[in-house]
Amino acid sequence: MSSSKLLKLHKILNDRISRGVINYVVPDLWNAWDYDGPEMRKLPSGELLVNPYRFYSRVIEKVILSHRKEGNNYGQSLSKTLGAKVPKGHIGGDWIRRSALYSTMIRTSSAWDHDRSHSLDLSNFDGMKETGTFVKTMALLPFWKKLGIDTVYMLPISRFSLKDKKGELGSPYGVASFFDLDPSLKDPMTGTAMKVEEEFQAFVEACHILGMRVIIDIIPRTNAVENDLIKDHPDWFYWIKASEFDQYKVPYVDGLENTLPPTAEYMPQVYASDDVKRHIRMFQFNPRIQNPKKWETLIQENPVDFVGEIEKRFGLKIAPAFSDHINDVQPPWTDVTFFRMYLDHPQDTVGYLDHPDIPPYILFDTIKCNLHPGLVPNQPLWDTLTGIIPFYQTRFGIDGARIDMGHALPKDLLDGIIGRAKAVDPDFAFIAEELDTDNAPIAQALGYNIIIGNGFWMEPRIWEKKLHKFVYGAQDIALPMFACAETHDTARIAGREGGRILARMTTVMNFFLPNLVPFVNSGQEVYETQPMNTGVDCTEKDKFNLPKGDLFYGKLALFDKYAFHYLNENRWELADHLDGAKDIRARWLNELTDLNAYVPVYFEEFDTPAIGAGYFNRKTGKCLVLLANANYQAGIHCTASLKVLREKAKNPSVEGRLVYSTYEMGREFRQFTQEGNLWADLGPGEVKLIEF
Amino acid sequence: MSSSKLLKLHKILNDRISRGVINYVVPDLWNAWDYDGPEMRKLPSGELLVNPYRFYSRVIEKVILSHRKEGNNYGQSLSKTLGAKVPKGHIGGDWIRRSALYSTMIRTSSAWDHDRSHSLDLSNFDGMKETGTFVKTMALLPFWKKLGIDTVYMLPISRFSLKDKKGELGSPYGVASFFDLDPSLKDPMTGTAMKVEEEFQAFVEACHILGMRVIIDIIPRTNAVENDLIKDHPDWFYWIKASEFDQYKVPYVDGLENTLPPTAEYMPQVYASDDVKRHIRMFQFNPRIQNPKKWETLIQENPVDFVGEIEKRFGLKIAPAFSDHINDVQPPWTDVTFFRMYLDHPQDTVGYLDHPDIPPYILFDTIKCNLHPGLVPNQPLWDTLTGIIPFYQTRFGIDGARIDMGHALPKDLLDGIIGRAKAVDPDFAFIAEELDTDNAPIAQALGYNIIIGNGFWMEPRIWEKKLHKFVYGAQDIALPMFACAETHDTARIAGREGGRILARMTTVMNFFLPNLVPFVNSGQEVYETQPMNTGVDCTEKDKFNLPKGDLFYGKLALFDKYAFHYLNENRWELADHLDGAKDIRARWLNELTDLNAYVPVYFEEFDTPAIGAGYFNRKTGKCLVLLANANYQAGIHCTASLKVLREKAKNPSVEGRLVYSTYEMGREFRQFTQEGNLWADLGPGEVKLIEF
Repeated sequence: MSSSKLLKLHKILNDRISRGVINYVVPDLWNAWDYDGPEMRKLPSGELLVNPYRFYSRVIEKVILSHRKEGNNYGQSLSKTLGAKVPKGHIGGDWIRRSALYSTMIRTSSAWDHDRSHSLDLSNFDGMKETGTFVKTMALLPFWKKLGIDTVYMLPISRFSLKDKKGELGSPYGVASFFDLDPSLKDPMTGTAMKVEEEFQAFVEACHILGMRVIIDIIPRTNAVENDLIKDHPDWFYWIKASEFDQYKVPYVDGLENTLPPTAEYMPQVYASDDVKRHIRMFQFNPRIQNPKKWETLIQENPVDFVGEIEKRFGLKIAPAFSDHINDVQPPWTDVTFFRMYLDHPQDTVGYLDHPDIPPYILFDTIKCNLHPGLVPNQPLWDTLTGIIPFYQTRFGIDGARIDMGHALPKDLLDGIIGRAKAVDPDFAFIAEELDTDNAPIAQALGYNIIIGNGFWMEPRIWEKKLHKFVYGAQDIALPMFACAETHDTARIAGREGGRILARMTTVMNFFLPNLVPFVNSGQEVYETQPMNTGVDCTEKDKFNLPKGDLFYGKLALFDKYAFHYLNENRWELADHLDGAKDIRARWLNELTDLNAYVPVYFEEFDTPAIGAGYFNRKTGKCLVLLANANYQAGIHCTASLKVLREKAKNPSVEGRLVYSTYEMGREFRQFTQEGNLWADLGPGEVKLIEF
Repeated sequence: MSSSKLLKLHKILNDRISRGVINYVVPDLWNAWDYDGPEMRKLPSGELLVNPYRFYSRVIEKVILSHRKEGNNYGQSLSKTLGAKVPKGHIGGDWIRRSALYSTMIRTSSAWDHDRSHSLDLSNFDGMKETGTFVKTMALLPFWKKLGIDTVYMLPISRFSLKDKKGELGSPYGVASFFDLDPSLKDPMTGTAMKVEEEFQAFVEACHILGMRVIIDIIPRTNAVENDLIKDHPDWFYWIKASEFDQYKVPYVDGLENTLPPTAEYMPQVYASDDVKRHIRMFQFNPRIQNPKKWETLIQENPVDFVGEIEKRFGLKIAPAFSDHINDVQPPWTDVTFFRMYLDHPQDTVGYLDHPDIPPYILFDTIKCNLHPGLVPNQPLWDTLTGIIPFYQTRFGIDGARIDMGHALPKDLLDGIIGRAKAVDPDFAFIAEELDTDNAPIAQALGYNIIIGNGFWMEPRIWEKKLHKFVYGAQDIALPMFACAETHDTARIAGREGGRILARMTTVMNFFLPNLVPFVNSGQEVYETQPMNTGVDCTEKDKFNLPKGDLFYGKLALFDKYAFHYLNENRWELADHLDGAKDIRARWLNELTDLNAYVPVYFEEFDTPAIGAGYFNRKTGKCLVLLANANYQAGIHCTASLKVLREKAKNPSVEGRLVYSTYEMGREFRQFTQEGNLWADLGPGEVKLIEF
């Protein structure tokens, strides 16, 4: 363990404590671990004034290193460290079924206006960084533990393109290099003594010591229009004339309706369209093929603005990506492009072309190339893409990955990606970016452990009974999916009509649902109302959920400087609730994750907003019943039918115990009816847990 | 003007702007002058983040130096600078009758937690001073101008004793040296390039350029028990045995009631009292007389703790002061002592002593030595005391002084003090610390221009009609007094039952009263509720007027670190009101300060809470009528009888114009009745001004 980056980081910070007191504040939520620095002052704002070197050094020492077992190598995946075995009936990576995820964007999660200058600075008055860093995020781990979290899922952390960037900082989804980390996540506190890669290593070690796994987000289908691969592989991309760049748009197919999937049946009409023909004609061969000598010169000169020089010398630009759906209303995604997965045209559509020897082009079929493969895979590219996860595994010891747009990758490539990762770590987990539950069997066949699913869309729609459908239907889905009412792409649950009550109800309930894995979107725990991105299930109005005077009014974390509202007056409420509920979840985790121990709970009342779930322990016959009131406006009475549960559990108890309620004093709960059913009074949005 | 300290200060600050941006905030009230520094940020708290060097440099340049007339010497009194002549029927210093005073304690007025560390530091994170300084106070001058202020009255600014100091910082009334300034008022922004004395000179210049006069507070009757004069003049003080110090208390005279004035009639009983005899026996001859050789050695060794060494080597301590009233309940004032004004015992009481050759002692008669003089004045002491004001006049160019406890000074000494000051500057103003309006003729005879008076006690007592008595009785007082509802020694008007409404009503009304001079106590303009001292008309409860979480809960500005609540949500309200009223005051200033132009205004209604005053311009016949509703709880109707005013003014107008109201939309005002009287509807605590 002499190579532990966490020990190195701790030493560096500790040695610098004497650099003097700096005017540095953190929200009190960042101190869910009883920091005891003598200099600390509690400010009326809810902030703490601390010496940052001591603060971060102490969290490592007091909370993290104190749990470290000598001899363990925490720099590898947690399964390897623990020597965990895959349980019977499971595949590697199925640990994710028992986990509780926190989705974080490091840049945002540990962002704070530390010098209170009313602006989030990359280098503040004291030279400190105010956007998030791996080092600062360590102080949040105890808070996430308090929420019951055991898995940290991170939005992309690779270096992304800053050219023509969206918003103030650019989107981490516009990856410029798979194998470098985003330099903005480097913390200046360590100066030149540590690289950002080492800081990430230290972060993963810290998570592992605390028993938390780390999942990253990888993006093998798209890349920034300006990226590091262009120099060596201009043939991996699609090119158009720079002079025609302004005319580049998504081709519109007359006679077809909007947003159709790019299946084979529509392709004749697509290729017959004049606008598609116009579009295909725009594409050009790559600059190296066009003029190898001029390209060689360019490579040797290696100018800083490489992409700009290509434009200047060859008159060529990379073609932007767009939606794979025919006649989608979205404009082109000007910051990213697609990788060219095959070196030839799609086999099932090449016949529609006038001449097959035209330059490669982006179209619905070449985008969705798993449906429309070529014959000649771009093997060097595939080798690169399948190498990404092993790089993060061996270098950083990550435990799992989400594959962005995996549904648009050739099956062989995906097999390669999953296969190579499992070869390094058989217990590595894969999350499919699959929102459609009908596709769960496909995802399962491909080797994924879980799909994203549609919770973010179903849960908020309580009046349409989508929440009910989501909860009661989950047992029939081939793979688990996430129990969540929001993601980084969607509207915030606390920003919807049900507000804080509905947010609290869904967040707590999500820890006790069958075949569903709790998933907390960063900021959700403090009732953040501003979405991080308005990509999915948002209206334009959602972008302006904050009061006009708010520093982050109209800002989106995915593109802009953003810090969560960690000073919200209810900031500790959900954390305290989840803290109280997590022991119950731990006690019932086997049953909660075993569909054979699950019994759906229905109610005697007609059309009630109540939701129920029952779990029984086969050995002890004990039962856990979840009752929740989806109505956030009014209290209800309900009678839960427990006949099936009792029979399966062989449990004739006449007394139940209220073990948890989202109300400080749980509303009345009148034990059992004569029929052995459970009568309860639920407050607006109340969640109750009853054991018997 | 090459010796202008203001120009020097401006240059130093301006040269240091590039020292880099510091994390420094000021309340927005400090910027009533449109600071335009490019670095400024408005924080949601109401604070401004500024570069302090630029901020203070700019206020000097933009607001102050821009008004400076080349060739004027602003380092002398404003009357001298302007060549002002004393008007007919007036004595020198009567300019104060036309003035509007702001009472400030520099240490507090420009105090702020600039680094937001939730503590007021003498040297903060950035080495800046957070208690007040002369330099910082310059930024407040535009705000005071906005309030209609033209005279800055400062609580003591001399160096005070820090030995056994009261509170966190000690009281400026425990003067240790008349001729040094309090070093804590020095600003670190100028470093060693300026002395605190130069900074005060710059401050006085700044006031004078803005047409504001400067009055200081001098304390010739008492001195700190540890002071600079002891070394050279042990015979100027009273001494007791150090071993008996703990038993020192105010003697109690049996058979007399509490708090009697120390007049001759009571003296037989005083001197017959056993407790008085015990008390007198405690006093000792001064250490130099007791052992001249040992004293000489002490002087030559000149130890740092001089007073402590006296105690160690001679067994003697200076006797503390106490109230001059017989059987007053106040304990001794342990931090101060009295000067020994006469070298012999009082002539009218010496006969009561068993032996006249006993050591000098402190008793009601020796305290009130103007009533009980000796035959042999302590001339060297008197010379020192009469030299104080001339020192401040010639060195700093001050315009007036308040004499603390002047009522306990021998008349000859007071004549000397006033006479020497007027010899330097015939237009120098004197304020008597005289609260009893019956004594106004005496103060007038002594040469004072104004007395403090009892406004602070009368104005808040609206239900007992004291406010009415104060306003309607003022015309009969021999000297003007201050129109105020609070002073630095009393409870705050906004902290009393009438709260903000009564505070607003009295503060505005005070600018329009006959024979009364507006006096704003620092903090009053932002509705401060915490008294600065609980010396007068306070209960112990007044010390705890702030909420418990407040940084200054239980603190008193006179002794502790204290900053006013400049972020109060109503912070601009009174300033905006006074700003609106000050032009009317300026237009009517001649009439407002001329009792011949004043007519009391009475009302037709019985026992109304309304208060009225009328003024007429003899040349134009125009009238100004003030109407105020002393009831802060309810609105009223009233009909002001204007017969006398109309007759004196020869003004038959049938139309009046509402020129001002403390309500944004003045309540209904139905012009004149058939009899030519004025009918008005006044909101709770409303003040109206009507011209016709």
